[in-house]
Amino acid sequence: MQSRFQGGAAFVRGAFVPIAEASISPLDWAFTRSDAVYDVVHVFEDGFYRLADHLDRFAVSMRTRRLAPPESRAQIEAILHRCVALTGLSDSYVAMVALRGRPRIPGSRKIEDCDNHFMAYAVPWIDVIPKDVQARGAHLWIATKPRVPDASVDPTVKNYQWSDFTSGLFEAQDNGFDSAIVCDDAGFVTEGPGFNVFIVKDGQVRTPDRGSLHGITRKSVLELCGMLGIPAAIAPVRRDELEDADEVFLATTAGGVMPAARINGTILGNDRPGPVSLRIKDAYWQQHRDGTHRTDVIRDA
Amino acid sequence: MQSRFQGGAAFVRGAFVPIAEASISPLDWAFTRSDAVYDVVHVFEDGFYRLADHLDRFAVSMRTRRLAPPESRAQIEAILHRCVALTGLSDSYVAMVALRGRPRIPGSRKIEDCDNHFMAYAVPWIDVIPKDVQARGAHLWIATKPRVPDASVDPTVKNYQWSDFTSGLFEAQDNGFDSAIVCDDAGFVTEGPGFNVFIVKDGQVRTPDRGSLHGITRKSVLELCGMLGIPAAIAPVRRDELEDADEVFLATTAGGVMPAARINGTILGNDRPGPVSLRIKDAYWQQHRDGTHRTDVIRDA
Repeated sequence: MQSRFQGGAAFVRGAFVPIAEASISPLDWAFTRSDAVYDVVHVFEDGFYRLADHLDRFAVSMRTRRLAPPESRAQIEAILHRCVALTGLSDSYVAMVALRGRPRIPGSRKIEDCDNHFMAYAVPWIDVIPKDVQARGAHLWIATKPRVPDASVDPTVKNYQWSDFTSGLFEAQDNGFDSAIVCDDAGFVTEGPGFNVFIVKDGQVRTPDRGSLHGITRKSVLELCGMLGIPAAIAPVRRDELEDADEVFLATTAGGVMPAARINGTILGNDRPGPVSLRIKDAYWQQHRDGTHRTDVIRDA
Repeated sequence: MQSRFQGGAAFVRGAFVPIAEASISPLDWAFTRSDAVYDVVHVFEDGFYRLADHLDRFAVSMRTRRLAPPESRAQIEAILHRCVALTGLSDSYVAMVALRGRPRIPGSRKIEDCDNHFMAYAVPWIDVIPKDVQARGAHLWIATKPRVPDASVDPTVKNYQWSDFTSGLFEAQDNGFDSAIVCDDAGFVTEGPGFNVFIVKDGQVRTPDRGSLHGITRKSVLELCGMLGIPAAIAPVRRDELEDADEVFLATTAGGVMPAARINGTILGNDRPGPVSLRIKDAYWQQHRDGTHRTDVIRDA
């Protein structure tokens, strides 16, 4: 049984299926209008990390976009456990998605005619920045296209509308970089495709106050800075401050704390992950080994 | 055989299937990054309208977003004919979609590792604004959230990133309106969810030069204005000019030329479709009855 699910397990339209069989309709407004919100939690050595925080944020995203699938929070949590259990994986990337659905009346364009639904899946661990690149320090390109403004699309609602990120990734790859950081129209740093950005300058850590998701790993980083006695703030970061930083690192559920070594033409420090970044990275994974913020995966779920 | 397809026919992953069986993977970046482009052509009384124009625009959209599914233009065209033929429908809404796909290497985040693919479907005719609402004149709400800027997401590439439109539609429905018009940050009119906007003032027609798709129906409207001797231009339209217009109408493949009767609190003319709008609407459908821009659906395709 387990082998059918080892590539990943999904819950969709009320059934658990191997990830390869999971499907959504091309008529679902979650696709044709990108009218969906999602969240991703990770499982490290058989334990979810900060599961409640992810469920909280997912609930806010759904409420903000008026998405109301029938599953309760307790049911969603049970579904996530079951997806992971089915895969047999110790380390996993676990997604939960609320989809607008399709109108009950064919051809209707009324949002309230749609039956919202919930989907989830667990797949093998994914690093947004591959581990070998994390080790040498990521090379990050500053995208020339500006981030979609917060006024148009709320970046704190985790969404799939990645066109600005994708444009940045094309530029990054064209120029031999690993990933991209996107700035807003006014020249302030926002975030990158799937991660928050942090700068370190004169021993102080700062992450942008705008244009970005309220990352759960970002939250961990800020808490860890407090514990480590490193001053840290959520505050504006100008593009020139990014380029002039002593260190830069990224934070995401799918990869953790990921130091950078280069920003566009600028080589940071010794072209290697910086010491403050590495301290925070180490503390982040130590939390995992210590079982902080851990929820054991229920294997017989 | 035909009855299986009467609700719609799709081509996906190389096979023709009833629309209810058409599916995409929730791991496809076309979904998880809204990394897809599309186009919609309509079939009126067994003939495509301006099929070549739609195929041209679709090709530009794909090229701009570096999407390269394996099907040639001729193959795409043949697939569209076959989808329509399978449905047996005389009037149809026909979509073509290029999807980023998934990385061949699981967990890869490299765009070039994705196998792009092509999907198409034909379903029964859809009116973006229902016909009875078109007849009385649509009531349009001006969205309070600004349109995503062109600099961040190119609106001439037909895409599914509708968050700003969806926000506008929520507001419209909350306030008892039929649909929404979205303005940009600087107060210029752009477009609405699935349609271009036109104003008529002192006998002159104008449609925005920014923030909007280069609509094929828009193109028809501008050509028809030329034939009817109505001055028409693509030029900036300020929000106050929209509210102060003599007439307003919308243009889209899925509905044609659709007059409005109200803009927010403003009642246009006699709270009915205006005479210039109706002249253009009539000429548009007359073109259809005359077979202008028509490509017969190949029924034995």
